[in-house]
Amino acid sequence: MDVGFLGLGRMGRPMALNLVKAGHRVRVWNRSPQAAEELRAHGAVPVATPAEAFRGDAAVTMLADDTALRAVLVEGGLLDQAEKPGVHLGASTISVALAEELAAVHGRAGVAYVSAPVFGRPDVAELGKLNILAAGPEDAIARAQPLLDAMGARTWRFGEAPARANAVKLAGNMMIVAAIEAMGEAAALGEAHGVAAADLLDLLTSTIFAAPVYKNYGASIAAGRYEPPGFGLSLGAKDVRLALAAAEAARVPMPLASVLRDSLLDALAHGDGEKDLAALATVSMRRAGRS
Amino acid sequence: MDVGFLGLGRMGRPMALNLVKAGHRVRVWNRSPQAAEELRAHGAVPVATPAEAFRGDAAVTMLADDTALRAVLVEGGLLDQAEKPGVHLGASTISVALAEELAAVHGRAGVAYVSAPVFGRPDVAELGKLNILAAGPEDAIARAQPLLDAMGARTWRFGEAPARANAVKLAGNMMIVAAIEAMGEAAALGEAHGVAAADLLDLLTSTIFAAPVYKNYGASIAAGRYEPPGFGLSLGAKDVRLALAAAEAARVPMPLASVLRDSLLDALAHGDGEKDLAALATVSMRRAGRS
Amino acid sequence: MDVGFLGLGRMGRPMALNLVKAGHRVRVWNRSPQAAEELRAHGAVPVATPAEAFRGDAAVTMLADDTALRAVLVEGGLLDQAEKPGVHLGASTISVALAEELAAVHGRAGVAYVSAPVFGRPDVAELGKLNILAAGPEDAIARAQPLLDAMGARTWRFGEAPARANAVKLAGNMMIVAAIEAMGEAAALGEAHGVAAADLLDLLTSTIFAAPVYKNYGASIAAGRYEPPGFGLSLGAKDVRLALAAAEAARVPMPLASVLRDSLLDALAHGDGEKDLAALATVSMRRAGRS
Amino acid sequence: MDVGFLGLGRMGRPMALNLVKAGHRVRVWNRSPQAAEELRAHGAVPVATPAEAFRGDAAVTMLADDTALRAVLVEGGLLDQAEKPGVHLGASTISVALAEELAAVHGRAGVAYVSAPVFGRPDVAELGKLNILAAGPEDAIARAQPLLDAMGARTWRFGEAPARANAVKLAGNMMIVAAIEAMGEAAALGEAHGVAAADLLDLLTSTIFAAPVYKNYGASIAAGRYEPPGFGLSLGAKDVRLALAAAEAARVPMPLASVLRDSLLDALAHGDGEKDLAALATVSMRRAGRS
Repeated sequence: MDVGFLGLGRMGRPMALNLVKAGHRVRVWNRSPQAAEELRAHGAVPVATPAEAFRGDAAVTMLADDTALRAVLVEGGLLDQAEKPGVHLGASTISVALAEELAAVHGRAGVAYVSAPVFGRPDVAELGKLNILAAGPEDAIARAQPLLDAMGARTWRFGEAPARANAVKLAGNMMIVAAIEAMGEAAALGEAHGVAAADLLDLLTSTIFAAPVYKNYGASIAAGRYEPPGFGLSLGAKDVRLALAAAEAARVPMPLASVLRDSLLDALAHGDGEKDLAALATVSMRRAGRS
Repeated sequence: MDVGFLGLGRMGRPMALNLVKAGHRVRVWNRSPQAAEELRAHGAVPVATPAEAFRGDAAVTMLADDTALRAVLVEGGLLDQAEKPGVHLGASTISVALAEELAAVHGRAGVAYVSAPVFGRPDVAELGKLNILAAGPEDAIARAQPLLDAMGARTWRFGEAPARANAVKLAGNMMIVAAIEAMGEAAALGEAHGVAAADLLDLLTSTIFAAPVYKNYGASIAAGRYEPPGFGLSLGAKDVRLALAAAEAARVPMPLASVLRDSLLDALAHGDGEKDLAALATVSMRRAGRS
Repeated sequence: MDVGFLGLGRMGRPMALNLVKAGHRVRVWNRSPQAAEELRAHGAVPVATPAEAFRGDAAVTMLADDTALRAVLVEGGLLDQAEKPGVHLGASTISVALAEELAAVHGRAGVAYVSAPVFGRPDVAELGKLNILAAGPEDAIARAQPLLDAMGARTWRFGEAPARANAVKLAGNMMIVAAIEAMGEAAALGEAHGVAAADLLDLLTSTIFAAPVYKNYGASIAAGRYEPPGFGLSLGAKDVRLALAAAEAARVPMPLASVLRDSLLDALAHGDGEKDLAALATVSMRRAGRS
Repeated sequence: MDVGFLGLGRMGRPMALNLVKAGHRVRVWNRSPQAAEELRAHGAVPVATPAEAFRGDAAVTMLADDTALRAVLVEGGLLDQAEKPGVHLGASTISVALAEELAAVHGRAGVAYVSAPVFGRPDVAELGKLNILAAGPEDAIARAQPLLDAMGARTWRFGEAPARANAVKLAGNMMIVAAIEAMGEAAALGEAHGVAAADLLDLLTSTIFAAPVYKNYGASIAAGRYEPPGFGLSLGAKDVRLALAAAEAARVPMPLASVLRDSLLDALAHGDGEKDLAALATVSMRRAGRS
């Protein structure tokens, strides 16, 4: 297929490369053109403008957040240009509200919009083993399936309304932050009773919580190692904020998520926004006077 | 070894049986004697009083809670009798405060006390694959190791102060409840945006949260199936209460655990105490007006 | 002075009338013109467009919320027209973010902007006894003082940055909601122990909490009387949301306010948005299974 | 009347003196006898043992907490002695559970028990202007009315079950802590936006929150003056704990009170237990990185 890819960050780059490897013709665009240029050697075709990428059989966007996606797509007028892609796969982690807005504006522009956020870190993206959450017109997802298969291990479908995939993605990210907060509080409780955080977390993440989320973040907490960030704390704060906004719009109280929000703000107020999300655990220690 | 086992409930029974299978001589006692009598055919020796069980090379207690253990052990005067066990393995999930008290009174009575709470459901206990958290005098643990090995897959040591193992156990149980609350809130968010809880939880517990805790409780939530209880909601409420009490004693704020406490009380107030802990998720739905 | 007044709702109407009574020439505008026309008999001058009101020595806006104020003022292009008011008193309860934006756009347009939100219900507004929080250029406040004196009992100054007055207003409204939530939880505790909410609240609001906020909302809770609304629950929810947004922007965790948010969402989800804010107390009762 | 008074602390001393002034014969006892001896000059009769005080027409207890009251009364065997008071007025702030237990044991001992906790600080006690919450047998309250009138401005009745008065007292104290937490969060929000806490609190406690609780604690927060303590933070923490325990026993979720508990623990963990309860506000500042 003839595909455009917009956004070549830590996730976008390996995803685009997997499309190339799978034999697709991939035009790549990035705000700082260097990142696109680097992919030329791998067989991708750098283009100079978002408009040149946003056309063909399909376009994939993997931009940082609502602001970036809105700037490029909506304010950039991509949907007003003559040439448009057959389907737009939106892989960014964006708000439910923006996804709903995008569904509407794509509808008016006659472009099929599929929300396709992903679970998986850059190393998983590299292996083409992401879990992709897809929601949008069924036939559009079907047409894009070869692309989804090139980037992910599995596609999880959530119906025709694109925003649903985003709601699920945000719920999942909220649950990740919840797991970290729970480990932080557990570790503070343990330390207060003489148990080293490393010992407590080693046990728990080796037994009843032997899932990658717990093991990875737990190891960081145990080691007190929060730099360089795998997934930045300020990004986690953004996602919890978006989850709460989606909940508020639908009048869903989420008291646990509210606690996460407050703990994340505490971490941000103490200058930990650029650290790894695992640094959230230091808030529990500080509250207990143990930092 | 010559072992006494007190408390033959859903966990105690398979644990005692595994001691028998491992070749130990096991005297068994239970409040309702029927449960002890049933084990005779498997090679255990039913005894009529706690005193007859609480002697020999070692005694294991697996009683329901603080009240039950205190009644049998402390108020029952077991530590005042002439014959006493070489080591007492306390496997019940009890409060940190009681564990500290037991350490003191055992010390005065000249009995080695080892806190040895476990992670694992009855089916895991049956397989002898429990994870056992042991804290107490090192040589006492060493002497009891054959017993621990018969009941568990692995022994995790937490030092000489028995209460530490209880602090870790309670922290772990709090984390289990946190996982359920997180799934409940995530599911409520999803449903409010048109995603069935089953679809959302299937994805999340198959990918980033592919740990047994999430898979088991998630499946119950997805199916709305809360009876019969695997682990009862009122027991979960008790454990969160004990975790918070241990935290309060050490002046550790645990805001996430506080949310769990309030959600559990909500469930109890609505008559769900005898249901499975997974029923906690219905509180999130009710808060959102979706029940 | 020659004054324009935009927004003649339950608060704006009596405020505008007090300006008339104080001898000022008052042009009045309202989205539904009927409300403006009604004031003609009282000596005000109805005008047909916001532009005709937004000029003269001063203009006062008392519109419903961010959206309404933004629509009329910013999107309506009032700051781009040739004739502009000497000072703009913004009395609406708006977000800190919008206040900051307004300060900037007024600066560019050469209009002095003073944030002037108020405390007091319609009956207090009628008496000209509002408490007015004013922040903005000192000389602009000085020029507007006769107007502030006509509408309020006292002007409380918060410096030159307009948004500060809005931050204080939102903090105060959050505290009002906190008082109601506290009464609701106290009442639920009392009822669960056999004390009628009316008896408990009568005592507390007659003694240590003998402030109007407690007495008024407490009386509603005691009587279970939530209609017609004095101050609507959905407005309270909006204000808590704005307080939390202002806090988030400045990285201030507010866990109590987060609880208020969740309780308010619970009330909204159960269809109580149009009731009086006091209906928040029913959430505490419902959580305890007492509704 | 012939009255015994047990507990001559900051509250008990002025209460006992008002009984003397009202013409009653008052035997006074205190754990450290010096406090009793000092009242001799004022006309009270110091006695050496609790037993000598706990007899006559009535006995009033104003001891520090559950532990102190239980030690003197229950463990001290006062209810087992031959001579007993006609009525026991329990004025201490104790748990609902202890009040229920006391009602039962007094019943068995044939002593009328009236829970009579009070609202008011020592200066109010001195003026005999306390608000007294009375619950117990109606005729016993009637007999004790002259005593209640000597100590308080008004008696608020809550029925025949003594524990009800304690539930109301704890609910009220929880609300006091809630007011302080709300001021703390409001002040942190204000400061983050450039408004001095003193300015914000001056406005709010002079207008919509012009109740003594807000004015007194607000002034302390504004001044950052937390020593000497009027009402100690650790006492406030105890009362919130008792309120939550009473709520838990009756299955009443109180999420706002849970936040108070966590903030109080944070303060205790940072060494502020001996400061005034107003020091709770420093937790909000610390969370926001502003301390």
